[in-house]
Amino acid sequence: MSANQAKICIGCWQQMHVPVPLRGVLSMPFRAFGIRPSRMNPNTCTVCELMFTRVMRARKITIDATVLFADLRGYTSLSQSVPADAISGLLDAFYDQCADAIWEHDGLLNKTLGDAVMAVFNFPIKNADHAIRAVRAAREIQSRWRVEREGLVERLGLADRDLGVGIGINTGELSFGEFGRSHRDLTAIGNVVNTASRAQSAAGADQILVTREVYQRAQPELAGSEATSYELKGFNAPVELYAA
Amino acid sequence: MSANQAKICIGCWQQMHVPVPLRGVLSMPFRAFGIRPSRMNPNTCTVCELMFTRVMRARKITIDATVLFADLRGYTSLSQSVPADAISGLLDAFYDQCADAIWEHDGLLNKTLGDAVMAVFNFPIKNADHAIRAVRAAREIQSRWRVEREGLVERLGLADRDLGVGIGINTGELSFGEFGRSHRDLTAIGNVVNTASRAQSAAGADQILVTREVYQRAQPELAGSEATSYELKGFNAPVELYAA
Repeated sequence: MSANQAKICIGCWQQMHVPVPLRGVLSMPFRAFGIRPSRMNPNTCTVCELMFTRVMRARKITIDATVLFADLRGYTSLSQSVPADAISGLLDAFYDQCADAIWEHDGLLNKTLGDAVMAVFNFPIKNADHAIRAVRAAREIQSRWRVEREGLVERLGLADRDLGVGIGINTGELSFGEFGRSHRDLTAIGNVVNTASRAQSAAGADQILVTREVYQRAQPELAGSEATSYELKGFNAPVELYAA
Repeated sequence: MSANQAKICIGCWQQMHVPVPLRGVLSMPFRAFGIRPSRMNPNTCTVCELMFTRVMRARKITIDATVLFADLRGYTSLSQSVPADAISGLLDAFYDQCADAIWEHDGLLNKTLGDAVMAVFNFPIKNADHAIRAVRAAREIQSRWRVEREGLVERLGLADRDLGVGIGINTGELSFGEFGRSHRDLTAIGNVVNTASRAQSAAGADQILVTREVYQRAQPELAGSEATSYELKGFNAPVELYAA
């Protein structure tokens, strides 16, 4: 499924068998009620972002999902030496490549903060193979970025620096919902999320590191990958991560 | 100005002298056009979040502003040992205390990611003393959190752990606007932002660290504070930070 192509919301169709038009004339009456393509995944709508609050009447739900963190290596250091325009063009390109790769594999681009991107797979679009999809999205980010980076180095007049992406992935049960009451914010939290974030910190430029849980669930995609032990901040015991 | 009190949008009034009702019957026709209180600051509206795109016809603008990052120390480690419910309650409380403190000082709660919060001062509500306001908001977060933490330790059955907040602040010219084209995202970027984030990483629990620029602009509020030299990730030279 390529991004920006779904005519009806995949989430609403899958979970409620209700066809919600996302684009074209048929979508007009829905837009009047604030139902429009989600910014986090344009193949789903703003209703299913919050489906659990309306349908399940809960602020938070526990779901089985896969979390992906991606981060641009060398961003802070580069920001000091190149003009603001070049940095802004760099970030535009990075967000876009990540978004397209994530949406192609039915993921939700949940958050961006500076050079960091966080995505969730298996919500609101459900896929039993969400761990595999996250791994494929990560590889897609890497290959798209390698192409983009070459263009950027030329177009923005950057020197040929270390501008690789580091990615971390983890899978399991997490808490998804709205956090905060004065400032409500839709996101995923929990140990599974934190471990994905720390795996990303451990990954080098152009590298993808996944946990044992992802390694096991993403077979045969990751067959032959070997574990390395990492000391991660905030974890008492070393964590085994696999290169994907 | 306390949160949730403004009857008209402060940003629209200040910059265009247009009264945009935020609450009550008068706000109804505006809401039909999607104009409602901003999630990032309920005393401003969804129009002035993007004022520069509509009024200035630019996707990004360069502004003089102050950036604050706050982060919960010990969050990753705690997530491994306490139930998911307790962590979710903890994060609810943290987001709420940060939001209220930031809004009280006219800041914009721009981003949350896990236990990290990012705020911008001097947009869309303009204040010449934005550096001082950010420092006051930081102190307010610290004092609110000290009270909240005591309650949490009891209510959620947490052990008396290190649950302090670390805060970093920087001020200067940054790029504010929408980044990414497929996934549009309103945020601030640039060297000023990165330095604030690194100052936050350097801060210990219950500590506020500000750059020399903030120290100079927030006088006499910070009189007597002494500089300490820090090695920050991604920076070639040591950076002097002041405790606030």
